Amino acid sequence: MQFVIKNGTIVSATEMYQADVAVADGKIVAIGKDLSLEGYDVVDAAGKLVLPGALDVHTHLAMPFGGTISSDDYFAGTRAAACGGTTTVFDFILQDFDEKMVDAVKRRDALCAPDAAVDYAFHVGVKDVSGDLLDSMEEAVEFGVPTFKVFMVYDFGVSDGVFYKVLQKSKEIGARISVHAENNEMVNMLVEKYISEGKTSAWYHYMSRPEFVEKEADERAISWAKELNAPLYIVHLANKGGVEAVTKAKDEGYEIYAETCPQYLHFTNEVYKREDGRNFVCSPPMKGQESQDAIWDAIIRGDIDTVATDHCPFQSYEKDWGKDDFRKIPNGCAGVENMYPYMLSMANKGKISFQKAVELCSENPARLFGCKDKGSLSVGKDADIVIYDKDKEFTISVDNMHSDCDHTIWEGAELKGYPVQTYSKGRLVFDNGEFLGERGWGKFVKRSLK
Amino acid sequence: MQFVIKNGTIVSATEMYQADVAVADGKIVAIGKDLSLEGYDVVDAAGKLVLPGALDVHTHLAMPFGGTISSDDYFAGTRAAACGGTTTVFDFILQDFDEKMVDAVKRRDALCAPDAAVDYAFHVGVKDVSGDLLDSMEEAVEFGVPTFKVFMVYDFGVSDGVFYKVLQKSKEIGARISVHAENNEMVNMLVEKYISEGKTSAWYHYMSRPEFVEKEADERAISWAKELNAPLYIVHLANKGGVEAVTKAKDEGYEIYAETCPQYLHFTNEVYKREDGRNFVCSPPMKGQESQDAIWDAIIRGDIDTVATDHCPFQSYEKDWGKDDFRKIPNGCAGVENMYPYMLSMANKGKISFQKAVELCSENPARLFGCKDKGSLSVGKDADIVIYDKDKEFTISVDNMHSDCDHTIWEGAELKGYPVQTYSKGRLVFDNGEFLGERGWGKFVKRSLK
Amino acid sequence: MQFVIKNGTIVSATEMYQADVAVADGKIVAIGKDLSLEGYDVVDAAGKLVLPGALDVHTHLAMPFGGTISSDDYFAGTRAAACGGTTTVFDFILQDFDEKMVDAVKRRDALCAPDAAVDYAFHVGVKDVSGDLLDSMEEAVEFGVPTFKVFMVYDFGVSDGVFYKVLQKSKEIGARISVHAENNEMVNMLVEKYISEGKTSAWYHYMSRPEFVEKEADERAISWAKELNAPLYIVHLANKGGVEAVTKAKDEGYEIYAETCPQYLHFTNEVYKREDGRNFVCSPPMKGQESQDAIWDAIIRGDIDTVATDHCPFQSYEKDWGKDDFRKIPNGCAGVENMYPYMLSMANKGKISFQKAVELCSENPARLFGCKDKGSLSVGKDADIVIYDKDKEFTISVDNMHSDCDHTIWEGAELKGYPVQTYSKGRLVFDNGEFLGERGWGKFVKRSLK
Amino acid sequence: MQFVIKNGTIVSATEMYQADVAVADGKIVAIGKDLSLEGYDVVDAAGKLVLPGALDVHTHLAMPFGGTISSDDYFAGTRAAACGGTTTVFDFILQDFDEKMVDAVKRRDALCAPDAAVDYAFHVGVKDVSGDLLDSMEEAVEFGVPTFKVFMVYDFGVSDGVFYKVLQKSKEIGARISVHAENNEMVNMLVEKYISEGKTSAWYHYMSRPEFVEKEADERAISWAKELNAPLYIVHLANKGGVEAVTKAKDEGYEIYAETCPQYLHFTNEVYKREDGRNFVCSPPMKGQESQDAIWDAIIRGDIDTVATDHCPFQSYEKDWGKDDFRKIPNGCAGVENMYPYMLSMANKGKISFQKAVELCSENPARLFGCKDKGSLSVGKDADIVIYDKDKEFTISVDNMHSDCDHTIWEGAELKGYPVQTYSKGRLVFDNGEFLGERGWGKFVKRSLK
Repeated sequence: MQFVIKNGTIVSATEMYQADVAVADGKIVAIGKDLSLEGYDVVDAAGKLVLPGALDVHTHLAMPFGGTISSDDYFAGTRAAACGGTTTVFDFILQDFDEKMVDAVKRRDALCAPDAAVDYAFHVGVKDVSGDLLDSMEEAVEFGVPTFKVFMVYDFGVSDGVFYKVLQKSKEIGARISVHAENNEMVNMLVEKYISEGKTSAWYHYMSRPEFVEKEADERAISWAKELNAPLYIVHLANKGGVEAVTKAKDEGYEIYAETCPQYLHFTNEVYKREDGRNFVCSPPMKGQESQDAIWDAIIRGDIDTVATDHCPFQSYEKDWGKDDFRKIPNGCAGVENMYPYMLSMANKGKISFQKAVELCSENPARLFGCKDKGSLSVGKDADIVIYDKDKEFTISVDNMHSDCDHTIWEGAELKGYPVQTYSKGRLVFDNGEFLGERGWGKFVKRSLK
Repeated sequence: MQFVIKNGTIVSATEMYQADVAVADGKIVAIGKDLSLEGYDVVDAAGKLVLPGALDVHTHLAMPFGGTISSDDYFAGTRAAACGGTTTVFDFILQDFDEKMVDAVKRRDALCAPDAAVDYAFHVGVKDVSGDLLDSMEEAVEFGVPTFKVFMVYDFGVSDGVFYKVLQKSKEIGARISVHAENNEMVNMLVEKYISEGKTSAWYHYMSRPEFVEKEADERAISWAKELNAPLYIVHLANKGGVEAVTKAKDEGYEIYAETCPQYLHFTNEVYKREDGRNFVCSPPMKGQESQDAIWDAIIRGDIDTVATDHCPFQSYEKDWGKDDFRKIPNGCAGVENMYPYMLSMANKGKISFQKAVELCSENPARLFGCKDKGSLSVGKDADIVIYDKDKEFTISVDNMHSDCDHTIWEGAELKGYPVQTYSKGRLVFDNGEFLGERGWGKFVKRSLK
Repeated sequence: MQFVIKNGTIVSATEMYQADVAVADGKIVAIGKDLSLEGYDVVDAAGKLVLPGALDVHTHLAMPFGGTISSDDYFAGTRAAACGGTTTVFDFILQDFDEKMVDAVKRRDALCAPDAAVDYAFHVGVKDVSGDLLDSMEEAVEFGVPTFKVFMVYDFGVSDGVFYKVLQKSKEIGARISVHAENNEMVNMLVEKYISEGKTSAWYHYMSRPEFVEKEADERAISWAKELNAPLYIVHLANKGGVEAVTKAKDEGYEIYAETCPQYLHFTNEVYKREDGRNFVCSPPMKGQESQDAIWDAIIRGDIDTVATDHCPFQSYEKDWGKDDFRKIPNGCAGVENMYPYMLSMANKGKISFQKAVELCSENPARLFGCKDKGSLSVGKDADIVIYDKDKEFTISVDNMHSDCDHTIWEGAELKGYPVQTYSKGRLVFDNGEFLGERGWGKFVKRSLK
Repeated sequence: MQFVIKNGTIVSATEMYQADVAVADGKIVAIGKDLSLEGYDVVDAAGKLVLPGALDVHTHLAMPFGGTISSDDYFAGTRAAACGGTTTVFDFILQDFDEKMVDAVKRRDALCAPDAAVDYAFHVGVKDVSGDLLDSMEEAVEFGVPTFKVFMVYDFGVSDGVFYKVLQKSKEIGARISVHAENNEMVNMLVEKYISEGKTSAWYHYMSRPEFVEKEADERAISWAKELNAPLYIVHLANKGGVEAVTKAKDEGYEIYAETCPQYLHFTNEVYKREDGRNFVCSPPMKGQESQDAIWDAIIRGDIDTVATDHCPFQSYEKDWGKDDFRKIPNGCAGVENMYPYMLSMANKGKISFQKAVELCSENPARLFGCKDKGSLSVGKDADIVIYDKDKEFTISVDNMHSDCDHTIWEGAELKGYPVQTYSKGRLVFDNGEFLGERGWGKFVKRSLK
């Protein structure tokens, strides 16, 4: 199938300009003024923006957590992604004990491959580096999964010593580590304290993981990376002190990257005082206004590299388990469908430029994570394209979302502008609110950081 | 004239990819895979890089200084630019006393327009803001010259009070100030001191303007900009302390930009110990290794925004005036032909990426200085194109340069790779060492920072 | 004359303890428990604090300024000092053009010696370093005046180049430079601006010398000192940014000292909105609350070294000259009688410790300025002693002050505690509100920084 | 017994001056010029310095560690102290599980009281805060032990959560926490790594606890203290990054104190390459030259508050257990007898002033730890006095030391100047190399931080 998107305004990480985009065989084949190509269908994008599809480098699909499984499976999650202009989804695989890294990848790929509606990639969450397992990272890199994650919290989190060894290994083999940074011992103490005081509401989820708990872990993680001069990527950065630590490390020349999420840019910890506060429970939790402001400032000056979602929805009945005990609330919220529309809306409202939105959601994730065929509308890249209507008013509601989840924390949020079409490798997968894709269309993206 | 450059690798500030570039009527009209366009000539760029032409935002052509005039007039300077892959040249006009800013522009444009071989733009160097002259900045902005410069040194330099007023005005009218930052009183004292001690060699040019003299002025200039929250652009940054001040200001969210020059990246103050040290005399002078390293580090982490040349050549006999008295050496060196080849060579040698070289020499200057049709090879932009041969070995010599100057400080420098063709608005102006352009081809670039 | 002060509580820079103090021949001869010394009178200080007299290292007595002369001559100024517990007064001498430093000292010493009621010392304000005058600093050092001052403002201020040379010389000869740091060109521009806008009230004195004008000069002064690794003492530091620059320099190991004044600790720029705002006009002016807080914080953490007064009173009729034009207000306020009572009152109210007040007003000034017989009540030191009643309530009024000035900016200020006796070298010079000293009792203090 | 020390030069934290010191009933009763007191013996100190005895706030006497007990019991340790001019010794008590804090104090006081040759005090090392044990800190404070310690390493170390709770409690009850800061998980990982690689020499003790392992823990500890705005005292600070973190926290106004030890000032990690490297094994280990330089710089600028020893000697045969496995080397070295002589020698050699040595070893420890009768030679204080001969050459050797230990890491160290007499509360306990004290002379010092 061949077609040309005419009359739109192309947006890249650095530019906006009017030109037509021609697509053939799932690839972008030409960009030009008034392209008239024989045998090409014409899609009129007059008055619209033509954007590269987003990459959400942080989702948890069908993930076991807190006694249940996140509600979006690989089909539902990638369907929602497509409907939000995200054309590549990264899932976190949690390694089993005694499991080689590449085996973990293969185990989950077997689940994902038949279901994915858009292209997908994996990171491996490292739990066990005993015996040969540390060395087994290298096979995963060769398989096309050069990014790993360590958790400093949760029962499957790793000690500082293991974190350090994993960092060291990653540097040797051309991989890179992502880190979920919160101080585990501090969280445990605070949880126990509040519970023992009978303080069980969602607000105490926040109080158990406040700013300083995340900040300290950010600083510690950066310490190890500096010592090894190893690259490090901090996921879902949500606090001011952590932002400062990232800026300082970048100034010193270290390869420290930071990701934040739309929920930290839009909500503050005030949400935990709402009656439905438990629905907003994720870790790290939303923080105070000062942290939100600091993150936006860092975006503007270039010290936040990417935006991703930590997409991990749970049904209301599951969230309700923790109505009277915040410990029992499964951690996580939906987001994959909201990221690009939210960031583009913030551009449309003037907070940032459209180019910056594309940089954070598409160009940078593609480049940093080694998706060489993604991240821009340059000739030769995959035709992962979003057509965006700047004038469309859109109010988010569970009714117009495409996750398998019965609520959304974004309910009622008013966006200025919205994606009207999404193409995945040249195939129309979303059109004016309707999902048009199919299971299995998405393929595994083999990546390399070199 | 219509043609297509085929089989090359396009480089932008963010990407490198293989595609063909089609040019018609001096504009880029299409980029595509295997473009076959009727009526288009074919230029084969197989194995070559295809780059946007550079913008040199800092030159002094035919400039009166030290009792003479810089040796490149508007023709020679733009000819040299074309031969070095630079397709837009910014000249500094020095306002006369009692002269309205726009009148200064018109005065020099009359000289430049008949001669320019590539497109050109102006900044106005502000000397006199008495009476209505401060307000006269606005007319210049409307005329398409929204950038002004203040000198903190020289007899035509301005006081801190005037600097502050100019900054304040620039913020009101959507202009931006550039600053030459050295401490005038300190320079004067040191010059007097060394002369009184009989220390007259070129080394004492450096000793009269060492690191701390520039650093302090950088810090002071940034102070005023912070106080007013006005954007500020520091030209030819050449010292470590100044780099640190820029980084700090950027971290704090201020709109402070920094330019450096190839001479500070390649040479150190050691050159002033050479017998021909006077040929290297420019202000600020080259500094020590520590400063050079700090500037490269800042380039890599993104705290230097642009590279430009401060091109201002003088003939040997003029330089010789200061053989026995460094005060009598006209300040300035040739550079406009060397910038892009040098930076690309440093990319080719692995110090930075080709994208970074393009960002520093083309994309950033175009964006920061409001040249909306320059800075990349995107569809719709001017066809200012450089074809670059990565494998060509090139040794700089006065014999293969195109300035009207009888020597070059770059004599003997060995570059890896070199431009083989330059197109200015679709016209071939440089081909394999030979200038093919013509006087008057270059046009005034009307700019706006909005 | 011999006497013992019994039953009081001695305060030093580090301690408070109960002991008797014996004085003979103007010196402290013993400190002990229940001293019973034959032939010694007894002074009962039960319930009182026994303190070393203060040193005010910053006064301007009988100083020509703004077309008049500061109203306290050497007698009045030292009388006021005695009545405020200050037993050593430093006066700034302004060098004449073409005058050797030591000649300036002798010139003023001739005026001061017959009149001084307490011991005194001099700094020389440097104006002219042409010819041999720079070298003439050394004679002054040998004479016992090892401290010099440069002004960055006023028509008698010096250029950066001269400042640098003076700093360099001071380092060679064991002297130390003090600096009045404000940016002269910025002050001039702002003054001209406000006057041209018809803004002539005392508030525009502040607006012409706001925080950033002082901060920049602090930073610049520190730059020169760092470059030379020369000690530097910043007088009357009154702004937050300057405090930060001092702290940074100290952290880096540079010998940078800072003095502040009681007026900056007690008043803010709000005073300039008062009808009698002109009476508060001094330079630098009082700043905003944020600066005041920053100075107190620096006192508490140890980054302010001394408190002094910049005592320089003018009569109301002189202040009135500037009623309609702030430029015509003579700069300066009375303070020498208020410093120690104010700082001790702040200790008594709990803001700082009594030890800290003694450190700032006595121990540090004595040590930093080479008054080896001053600064504490240790055996062998001059018997410059203050007996302080913590329970005495005191409201400052022009009626209970001892300057030759018809008003005081401290009018109405309520102090908790007040000095009840002052001894100068064993002689009672102040007793319960009454001056008991005499002209000529005070002697020149020959100092050395070694 | 009454006596007067005549003709010496008294040194305090701020001054040096000639005066006589009279002692009666174990207290200093007078300081004066030419004191002639009836019934007082005369001690001639002509040409000597007369100093307050030092306080060593960090020793481990008779401490169980690594399967043995530190070799100095309360008698030997305090005997050695007396012979090194240290007249107050603080011992760390390690709380037992399920033991109230005050019970731990009483348990060890029962051991110490009969044996101590000089005054002593305790800190409690906190292990167990379960149940009421956290609250039991308050009783210890009332008993006169207001200082506690947490270990971030060792099997008896505490988690971050417990550390935080202890800090919080300390703030409520007027206590203060000391911390041994190293990262436990990192140490464990590195130890395991080196052992598994067959790297077992003393050098790998250092390699398992290098700079960054201590630095990170310093930063983390300071994080908790800042969050709570609670005072914190870092023991045996031995690395550059930690020094920087302390300086930053002090600048920000936090009450963070730092102690270092003579071994970190004199030795570097080079000692671990020596054949007897195991004798130098202590934790934290000596670090590189850069750290040593940073600590000296911090001493000079005032960012190190105290010097103490971490005295904890083991016999050679015990050290030998780890000849082939650094894990088996008991951690600790002798030092209590070396601190004051070493620091005074460094003053005598010109590195610091004698006042600074007194401040670090006596005045500051006394003030910070609430020993109101110690820390200076002021009237009313305990007559803990050291007479110091600046001209005495002294080479440290196990033969002239007074510990119960068969070697010393200081063997061969050449000191300039040495204590010749020590008085403990007016009693001569050390005279020219000979211990003259007795068991039980030392008493428990009841302390309060208020």
